[in-house]
Amino acid sequence: MSTEEVAKKVTELVRKQSWYEALDTLYGNDIVSVEAFSAGGGPTETRGKEGVRGKIDWWVNAMEVHSFKASEPFVGHDRFVVQYDADVTDKKTKERRKLSEVGVYTVKNGKIVREEFLPRVG
Amino acid sequence: MSTEEVAKKVTELVRKQSWYEALDTLYGNDIVSVEAFSAGGGPTETRGKEGVRGKIDWWVNAMEVHSFKASEPFVGHDRFVVQYDADVTDKKTKERRKLSEVGVYTVKNGKIVREEFLPRVG
Repeated sequence: MSTEEVAKKVTELVRKQSWYEALDTLYGNDIVSVEAFSAGGGPTETRGKEGVRGKIDWWVNAMEVHSFKASEPFVGHDRFVVQYDADVTDKKTKERRKLSEVGVYTVKNGKIVREEFLPRVG
Repeated sequence: MSTEEVAKKVTELVRKQSWYEALDTLYGNDIVSVEAFSAGGGPTETRGKEGVRGKIDWWVNAMEVHSFKASEPFVGHDRFVVQYDADVTDKKTKERRKLSEVGVYTVKNGKIVREEFLPRVG
């Protein structure tokens, strides 16, 4: 798949919140997944498909998702960007908040090999 | 400057279309600037500050800009992303069109060392 095809497929799956299907079909085994901040001072970088599966497990268990929107993808060469806007409630703290971030993805041989999540500032 | 400070400054200058000031104050000498597509089959990658100055010269001479909007920046580690939405007329062809793209920037030692422009797809 080209970068554009991967980008469109990710966007389609994320809009359905089909996180596991996206991971299983579009991610490389050596995926590196980077958050801007870590929960509780842990590492911001996660390596490998099973690590990313753990992040999805955490998200699905921790968050009640009221809405999750993905922009059309922006694509160039081996890179694409999607903006996400979510309205969620943390199940434990009951805190409801809006999340706005972009995912910056790198594609190699038709698979996502790196993803970085950058929250909106200001 | 931190990545976030560079990101905010770029956004502020771009909103004023102060391209040359952004280049002179925020870019590293070895900047690599990447377009998704090239004009007329030339290279998509430009290296060095003078190369980027040439891109700005081209833009300023070629385009009548009706509006140019920049999103708030998205920031994580050494990377930031800004979305641009422009309404322009190509002075030569008189064609008016809307451009929507993101810039993905990499910062090192307080200077922008890489920028990639990714147009919206679909």
